[in-house]
Amino acid sequence: MAAPVRSVLPVVLLGCGGVGRHLLRHILSCRPLHANQGVAIRVLGVADSSSLLVADDLHSNGFDDALLADLCAAKSAGSPLSSLLSRGQCQLFNNPEARRKVIDTASVLGKTTGLVLVDCSATYDTVGMLKDAVDRGCCVVLANKKPLTCAYEDFEKLVSNFRRIRFESTVGAGLPVIASVTRIIASGDPVSRIVGSLSGTLGYVMSELEDGKRFSEVVKTAKSLGYTEPDPRDDLSGMDVARKALILARLLGQRISMENINVESLYPSEFGPDAMSTKDFLESGLVQLDKSIEERVKAASLKGNVLRYVCKIESTGCQVGLEELPKNSALGRCYESAPLVIQGAGAGNDTTAAGVLADILDLQDLFHKTA
Amino acid sequence: MAAPVRSVLPVVLLGCGGVGRHLLRHILSCRPLHANQGVAIRVLGVADSSSLLVADDLHSNGFDDALLADLCAAKSAGSPLSSLLSRGQCQLFNNPEARRKVIDTASVLGKTTGLVLVDCSATYDTVGMLKDAVDRGCCVVLANKKPLTCAYEDFEKLVSNFRRIRFESTVGAGLPVIASVTRIIASGDPVSRIVGSLSGTLGYVMSELEDGKRFSEVVKTAKSLGYTEPDPRDDLSGMDVARKALILARLLGQRISMENINVESLYPSEFGPDAMSTKDFLESGLVQLDKSIEERVKAASLKGNVLRYVCKIESTGCQVGLEELPKNSALGRCYESAPLVIQGAGAGNDTTAAGVLADILDLQDLFHKTA
Repeated sequence: MAAPVRSVLPVVLLGCGGVGRHLLRHILSCRPLHANQGVAIRVLGVADSSSLLVADDLHSNGFDDALLADLCAAKSAGSPLSSLLSRGQCQLFNNPEARRKVIDTASVLGKTTGLVLVDCSATYDTVGMLKDAVDRGCCVVLANKKPLTCAYEDFEKLVSNFRRIRFESTVGAGLPVIASVTRIIASGDPVSRIVGSLSGTLGYVMSELEDGKRFSEVVKTAKSLGYTEPDPRDDLSGMDVARKALILARLLGQRISMENINVESLYPSEFGPDAMSTKDFLESGLVQLDKSIEERVKAASLKGNVLRYVCKIESTGCQVGLEELPKNSALGRCYESAPLVIQGAGAGNDTTAAGVLADILDLQDLFHKTA
Repeated sequence: MAAPVRSVLPVVLLGCGGVGRHLLRHILSCRPLHANQGVAIRVLGVADSSSLLVADDLHSNGFDDALLADLCAAKSAGSPLSSLLSRGQCQLFNNPEARRKVIDTASVLGKTTGLVLVDCSATYDTVGMLKDAVDRGCCVVLANKKPLTCAYEDFEKLVSNFRRIRFESTVGAGLPVIASVTRIIASGDPVSRIVGSLSGTLGYVMSELEDGKRFSEVVKTAKSLGYTEPDPRDDLSGMDVARKALILARLLGQRISMENINVESLYPSEFGPDAMSTKDFLESGLVQLDKSIEERVKAASLKGNVLRYVCKIESTGCQVGLEELPKNSALGRCYESAPLVIQGAGAGNDTTAAGVLADILDLQDLFHKTA
């Protein structure tokens, strides 16, 4: 049944928390499908924040199915990567040796079979490794937004060989936002403006407010449902949306950085992490914000509008914050004729992981086995 | 400023009417952009329904910019391809030699530099050539739906090397419909249902009806605006939508053909092209349909619904026709949570041509120049 293998994609995964772990599960469950398509994904290494588990033989088929399944189970249970050493096939490297081993692996495979370095972590720490990997001819797939949002020079370096990088899941998770914008640019069409509601968390919060619920209650519910970061201020600050906006703006060719983006936070700076603990914010800070938010929701409603947390990217500037939009409008409503609107499941580890997997497969032609 | 050329894409274009001509213009205007990206598109041949103009030297850079511009102008003015012979660089082949020359070209280039055969025609006649090109290792890009909607065996042959074919523009013109579905399939997600409003023409007609206008008037206006085919029954029959539905269904793995699709025509068979001329249909047939359509629009409206011409693809079957949908719903509203919704400029020669160009560029990794 399986087709002859046409493309072999060796992968090293940085970050095996939520998205990374789901990615490994997807890779495992898609094995028969990919075999039918003549594609094989070899997982040669998996790193978390403290260590790297790497295949003994970099030119082997990588971790077998049983080890991958155990790896997913171990990370689910909060066990360290070292718990898998007894399985054989692999070695463990702790930081900073782990970092050096990733770069060595990139050197070895970049020159021979090629390598896809997949970043599903959530730190700025990987950017050095990623740039080194790019220098060594490796491909890069990112679910992690941070490497694309630090210094412009880092972004430029990462996308310098644009065909060897994919980062579809950094904006809109499983929705084809980056691919659509890239296609439009490739065909020479100018993009006049991008307007987006790019946060699933804030999308939920704003919809609930519309139904008359109190801001403090909505945020607490969102937290209890697992929709927010452990400290909800990470979402309410707008920084996550700002990062997505920056990626889109840079994709459009704007040579800007975070400090050029006008970001509206949903809490005042005196309620910020430097001034108040998460506990205090949840127990006493949040409720003090109810009144002003309620007034804004009401003011919008009186005009037949709803409040949405959106990003707006135009040639004149880039901003992220609350906007009044016509009720029942697709967000994206731009009053020009027929703007491209992409709506759907734009959040969630599982959806994001599926997007990362599609990105990896999208690179397969660079790993084409010539007969 | 121009980057070193990384990928050279030799192209032969079948069909240089609306979409094909716009494609040539896009290729021309995107030359500097593509040069910056290290990509070069070489136009080696252009065919219309009667002949083929082909470069003297298949390993040259192909038609120069001046010839391409003249070619666009000639096709705009309705001049035959032979009018360009005086320009040199090229030879003319009339049918059936033209067909043989396309296949010869595919043989020569398929084995050496590779070739992208681009079908922007609107006939079933190209399917043999396309299959021969696939056999010879060529890539295929289609704006023409018909080759994908004839016998299932033909479809199977054309997509047999799925990485070497692109047909994004056959469904939804510039919208990333095919790519989105392909990405979802590649990441192992099951697709339970696709619901789409896939005809710009019928989308226009149905919206106008909603405003209380008469069917016959709306269709005539659509024709005068150039939104319909010369015989509007080509749109009203639903066959164009059925072709798109068939492509999507086959993409999902359904081994079905046109006869398996339930297609609702907006006119009865006694008003069909076999029984009535286009003139008679427009002058006397159309008005006889007003009453029944008006009744359906009203019945929908009384329930707070609007009438839309949609395709529905499910594992249980595939149908194309009028449906009542909730007013203000994004079409695609499926009552499941967060379906993927793609809205936008899904029609027009220009948009379609831009989609074809993006498809061609998407193939560039197969034409990668190894150092």
